[in-house]
Amino acid sequence: MSQQIPEVVIFRLPTYLYILNLLDEENVEIVSSQELGARLQMTPAQIRKDLSYFGKFGKQGKGYNVKLLLSELRRIMGLEREWNMVLIGTGRLGKAILDYSRMTLKGFKYVAAFDIDPALVGEMAGDIAIQHISELPQTIKTKSIDIGVLAVPPSQVQQAVNQLVDCGVKAILNYAPVATQAPKDVRIRKVDPGLVLQTMAYHLQSLGTA
Amino acid sequence: MSQQIPEVVIFRLPTYLYILNLLDEENVEIVSSQELGARLQMTPAQIRKDLSYFGKFGKQGKGYNVKLLLSELRRIMGLEREWNMVLIGTGRLGKAILDYSRMTLKGFKYVAAFDIDPALVGEMAGDIAIQHISELPQTIKTKSIDIGVLAVPPSQVQQAVNQLVDCGVKAILNYAPVATQAPKDVRIRKVDPGLVLQTMAYHLQSLGTA
Repeated sequence: MSQQIPEVVIFRLPTYLYILNLLDEENVEIVSSQELGARLQMTPAQIRKDLSYFGKFGKQGKGYNVKLLLSELRRIMGLEREWNMVLIGTGRLGKAILDYSRMTLKGFKYVAAFDIDPALVGEMAGDIAIQHISELPQTIKTKSIDIGVLAVPPSQVQQAVNQLVDCGVKAILNYAPVATQAPKDVRIRKVDPGLVLQTMAYHLQSLGTA
Repeated sequence: MSQQIPEVVIFRLPTYLYILNLLDEENVEIVSSQELGARLQMTPAQIRKDLSYFGKFGKQGKGYNVKLLLSELRRIMGLEREWNMVLIGTGRLGKAILDYSRMTLKGFKYVAAFDIDPALVGEMAGDIAIQHISELPQTIKTKSIDIGVLAVPPSQVQQAVNQLVDCGVKAILNYAPVATQAPKDVRIRKVDPGLVLQTMAYHLQSLGTA
């Protein structure tokens, strides 16, 4: 894939997946960009432009095959395989993340956990034995780690990012509300677990003022 | 607010907030719909249409005042107050949700937790004493519960929804992968904690095939 796809277009892909899954559940086989546009409140032109980044779906005037587009998007998004994750920081937040993720995530699996505190090494975080951060490079290689997740105090975030980058990790989730720096091919995202609740709050707010 | 705002427009509001927060951090005071469009890869017309649902922001040819738009959107979205939540189902998933949420959420607070199993009543889930589900109506009134969160087995989801609806709760998050029915003024959302990881997977996938 030689063309750089804008990050905001990537952000919209889960929405396309969401709507396509709904259509598939409703046994809709073919959908036009007009119909997708109506569902998503987006112009058909915007939708055709977004999807064109990923290949040639649908034929002029024929609409998109829902099942085909769904499986292609899942493949392109890398959702048809399992990704290995490592947690750095095994304090209360780190343990809560491990526990919550094991209960709720599909396709993304924590396979190792690290802490800077030697006293925690060997303790269990869920079913993972905590390792000392000095073992990070070796473990990232042997366990094929794809994604690093940071649950460390804000003052330690940049150091942890540097360590992951040095080990070749290209995707990092950061739970601390601080900005970080990394090379251009490394994607760092701050996690905002409140997003779905924000849309709820709006719903309640609008009922209250109706 | 008499006009019905499409749900998909609501879904885009957190993205606007995200970009506006970035602009504010960069000390940008005024932003045009063209500039917003470039950042979001959306047409300026789409952006003006989305924002027009919420009122008259910005003047023709003058752009949007970033701080003003940000605070107006936060107010409109109901993010300038605290919302009370109740958890139903205090098994392993429920406890993980409580713990994770307390560590990560702002503006949304669990104030009660219920289970159908009498043996669990009085046990602590974090700092909340578990109550029997029969006490739900009373607690929803006295503690001004706004949002119900379901961590019950799929077979019990609809019953829990019915109980919340009967108590007047208008917003429900459901962790079980099952569809539910409720009156039109009740918003039910399935939670997908994997959304941010999906965009990560795409990034890694595209690096791998570059």
